[in-house]
Amino acid sequence: MTETIAEIVAAHRAGASTPAQTVARCYQRIRAHSDPAIFITLRDEAEAVAEAVALAARDPSLPLYGVPVAVKDNIDVAGLPTTAACPAFAYRPSKDSTAVARLRAAGAIVIGKTNLDQFATGLVGVRSPYGIPRNAMRPDLVPGGSSSGSAVAVAAGLVPLSLGTDTAGSGRVPAMLNNIVGLKPSLGLISTTGLVPACRTLDCISVFALTVDDAMTALRVMGVPDAADPYSRDRALATMTAPPVRLRLGVPRRDQWQFFGDQQAEQAYADALQRWTTLGAELIDVDIEPLYETARLLYEGPWVAERYLAIRELIDTTPDAVHPVTRAITLGGKGITAADTFAALYRLQALRRIAEPAFAAIDALVLPTAPTAYTVDEVLAEPIALNSRLGTYTNFVNLLDLCGLALPASIRADGIPFGITLLAPGGRDAQLARIGRLFHADTALPMGATGRMQPNLTPLDSPEDKDSIAIAVVGAHLSGMALNGELTTPGGRLVRATTTAPDYKLYALKGTTPPKPGMLRVAPGTGAAIAVEVWSLSPAAFGHFVGAIPQPLSIGTVTLADGAKVKGFLVEPAALDGAREITHFGGWRAYMAELAATG
Amino acid sequence: MTETIAEIVAAHRAGASTPAQTVARCYQRIRAHSDPAIFITLRDEAEAVAEAVALAARDPSLPLYGVPVAVKDNIDVAGLPTTAACPAFAYRPSKDSTAVARLRAAGAIVIGKTNLDQFATGLVGVRSPYGIPRNAMRPDLVPGGSSSGSAVAVAAGLVPLSLGTDTAGSGRVPAMLNNIVGLKPSLGLISTTGLVPACRTLDCISVFALTVDDAMTALRVMGVPDAADPYSRDRALATMTAPPVRLRLGVPRRDQWQFFGDQQAEQAYADALQRWTTLGAELIDVDIEPLYETARLLYEGPWVAERYLAIRELIDTTPDAVHPVTRAITLGGKGITAADTFAALYRLQALRRIAEPAFAAIDALVLPTAPTAYTVDEVLAEPIALNSRLGTYTNFVNLLDLCGLALPASIRADGIPFGITLLAPGGRDAQLARIGRLFHADTALPMGATGRMQPNLTPLDSPEDKDSIAIAVVGAHLSGMALNGELTTPGGRLVRATTTAPDYKLYALKGTTPPKPGMLRVAPGTGAAIAVEVWSLSPAAFGHFVGAIPQPLSIGTVTLADGAKVKGFLVEPAALDGAREITHFGGWRAYMAELAATG
Repeated sequence: MTETIAEIVAAHRAGASTPAQTVARCYQRIRAHSDPAIFITLRDEAEAVAEAVALAARDPSLPLYGVPVAVKDNIDVAGLPTTAACPAFAYRPSKDSTAVARLRAAGAIVIGKTNLDQFATGLVGVRSPYGIPRNAMRPDLVPGGSSSGSAVAVAAGLVPLSLGTDTAGSGRVPAMLNNIVGLKPSLGLISTTGLVPACRTLDCISVFALTVDDAMTALRVMGVPDAADPYSRDRALATMTAPPVRLRLGVPRRDQWQFFGDQQAEQAYADALQRWTTLGAELIDVDIEPLYETARLLYEGPWVAERYLAIRELIDTTPDAVHPVTRAITLGGKGITAADTFAALYRLQALRRIAEPAFAAIDALVLPTAPTAYTVDEVLAEPIALNSRLGTYTNFVNLLDLCGLALPASIRADGIPFGITLLAPGGRDAQLARIGRLFHADTALPMGATGRMQPNLTPLDSPEDKDSIAIAVVGAHLSGMALNGELTTPGGRLVRATTTAPDYKLYALKGTTPPKPGMLRVAPGTGAAIAVEVWSLSPAAFGHFVGAIPQPLSIGTVTLADGAKVKGFLVEPAALDGAREITHFGGWRAYMAELAATG
Repeated sequence: MTETIAEIVAAHRAGASTPAQTVARCYQRIRAHSDPAIFITLRDEAEAVAEAVALAARDPSLPLYGVPVAVKDNIDVAGLPTTAACPAFAYRPSKDSTAVARLRAAGAIVIGKTNLDQFATGLVGVRSPYGIPRNAMRPDLVPGGSSSGSAVAVAAGLVPLSLGTDTAGSGRVPAMLNNIVGLKPSLGLISTTGLVPACRTLDCISVFALTVDDAMTALRVMGVPDAADPYSRDRALATMTAPPVRLRLGVPRRDQWQFFGDQQAEQAYADALQRWTTLGAELIDVDIEPLYETARLLYEGPWVAERYLAIRELIDTTPDAVHPVTRAITLGGKGITAADTFAALYRLQALRRIAEPAFAAIDALVLPTAPTAYTVDEVLAEPIALNSRLGTYTNFVNLLDLCGLALPASIRADGIPFGITLLAPGGRDAQLARIGRLFHADTALPMGATGRMQPNLTPLDSPEDKDSIAIAVVGAHLSGMALNGELTTPGGRLVRATTTAPDYKLYALKGTTPPKPGMLRVAPGTGAAIAVEVWSLSPAAFGHFVGAIPQPLSIGTVTLADGAKVKGFLVEPAALDGAREITHFGGWRAYMAELAATG
């Protein structure tokens, strides 16, 4: 039986199985699956098992305690060759990449290095001298790429976790084509130290897993700043918490849908949108022409020169060592000038600014992950044009510094998997996950090609973002009231409506405009439960908000009915002289309603 | 008599003079100064006076009410030709640049367009077919460039304000050579819409003025986001307020000083550092080799291709239309490849990361503005090498997204002005100004070449940054106490030590670790003045800080002894049951001292 990361770790902690057993089972499955094109280098089994045995000396609360992981073969693992699917390029690193080192420190065990479109150039998975990994869902389809082996290894249930990379869609297209989750983090969130660069300004290490929660577990392990990577950024990965009360999802204008005649894909996308509506999301039309223009900029612009730069020495001296399609593409970067490069950077900057307002109005953009799927034969016959089509909805993402989460959406009648991708501005990875996990669970799709159903979703830790600050509001800041805009304007989100613990008294303050209440904590048992709304603000917005609160109100800690303590409004007792006590109304809204009714 | 912006605006508001009189006087001075190389286009006087007369219908509280301004001739002014000092390139814009439009909206009156090193390429001011503006301090010296005319116009007292531009030092080097203030803002703070690009990713519009306060008045008018400029950024210009209590200034390691044999310059720099020490600053050695490497990257790297891109059509079709030195430099950008460009961008990113920690430890870096000065004859004989030397301390600044403030430091015995530049990470423009104004005032230098002394410094509005949030701390967060690190770690700064209004009671709370007081506001006249420290935090840091304050403490508004209201610690009265009242100690520190003394 295939397990998720969560299940494996739980079994290890409970003693139901050992990491060594898990690793051994993993190798058995790899042998049974019998596809030599998935792994370029499979690690020596005895060595991997020995590492698993040695885990006994470590803390079982490690987040990836005994989890087997496959690593795309353009990411360094100490002691295993890094080939980037080019034998002439291969070298044997003495150090783990930072991402792999962090996985290992968290208890993961590397099983092997997976196949890819050479130098991560391609979205198809057929451009490798190490063969073409079989698509786990339908063997005639391309596996997708460039992270072909990593996606198939997870989809086939060989490992519960693998690393891919993603520069223009390589971590998302193969996720769709194999019915698994592909998480493309924000730029700089996972260090790229020890990664063979494709386009160094755009490269991300990405995560394949069977569930969103598993992918987030891995991202949390890897998503920390790395001083050795100049492109690493401190993007403060928020805890994955419950989604916003009202979900606003952007959808391309209907005339901008592109499916290249694939009506089943188009229908699958429409069905996915319908699912979102059923889940309570509001769909908002977005003009995605600026995204398409950005994609063309990648395709026609200077970034291919980064690919050339990365292998300049090899391709200039030994061009025959490079796959013919990869070579043709890469050499296209040789003749581009610096002036053209800057011209493209200017245009990209303008496009970023054009795209910003659209994203500011939504929680995420929902796109097809790829517009269609192709067979191996089709792609071999038309290797560049069909590859390009697969990138329709992925190419622009890294240029715009968006984060992406590719999710299975459905299996079409013809057995081809269809998927969607959630996109948001960089830094919102956790927000995408908390939205996406609900969608994936709702599809009730089996995981990958394993035939196994998704486990039930575990409830999230707390309703508030750890990166955000929750604040209980009592009076004029409640939804619809005079000062509610002070919460919504800086991006505040309503988390829940509840009441305080029964330890508070409420007063109508004298001489305040607009009218405001004051809430005071009193001795246990002498107060009442007061209706509040809990809102969530970013630290900076919260800071500004608190900074603007006038005397005699202050922001302290309010105990809620369920015992949770959140920041919230309190009043200075010195201001209550002559104020009317309105505790018995149970809240400001009820008091104001009565006030309005009685004139 | 030459006036500053502040004096001119005050005179207009008081009715002591009219904008029309001011403008007319400005033209008289231009005629009397008699240097035809300063302005490429002088605006029709009658038109400018008419605009000044029309100001009578507008609000005299406008920040630049009736202030004459000269504009570098690579910045569009509607109706006047923009030449960039290249007649073949000239065009007549129908719209003001955004910066000029904002100056005009604030009451400024454009007098004319000033000479420059052609296409803003150069630091010398001799590369123009419109002649060489005479250095205002010593006529044999180069005026400095590329903003030559703008700097001389202010230094000679023709206008109190001018716009320059700055890509590699063009807004700073001429400031030093003419004994005036040159403010090079953070990238994106002033819109570049309507600017002829030099290196579009690095260009800044800059400000020349006679005093730091004047420069900041202009910056505040122009420093707002502009949707029409993709490189415009919302960099929230803080109010210029009192400097930090302890000033930490970075200084290059002595072995990294470069003066090209100019011992008077070296001595002048040492004297300037001595002045800082006298002013109470702590000088901290900084390894500036990463800055020098960045400068080499600009000089040898791909950015010159931006200059080529900006005038590609002209220089490819009519090369003779371009100044020979400018042409030679600019054509150097034609052959650079995209691959080399990306390689340089990678290195720049690494250098940015290397430079970050040094800047995190200081309030500003203090460098010579230029290492020496040259005569016109010297530069004409060796046009490229000497120009490069002048950029020793300026070239790297925009690549690293630093803001800079060039200040007069002294007049050497040989009559050559020496200046220093304060540098800090982008966004700290106001902080540089509040430091720099004290230094400039302390030099007691006359302003520019006007022979006039600097006016007395006006006191700053308030001791707190408007962009920061001030918080009064009462107990364990005081300097040296257990929780003070919660303020210093996120960059909090001590603003002042004072007491509250006499309306508070202080209690020692029961069962808190570390021991904490609670402060409660009581009816006027029934409390005491309690010792507090006011600290300043960024909104985000403040938000985190407030978020972590435990029950029963809250952050409300505290009234200080001088009547000012700042955020501060308060206690919930519900927690005072059984707490010891310690109001009579007058503060937590006194109470803790007694506690320690009595065991």
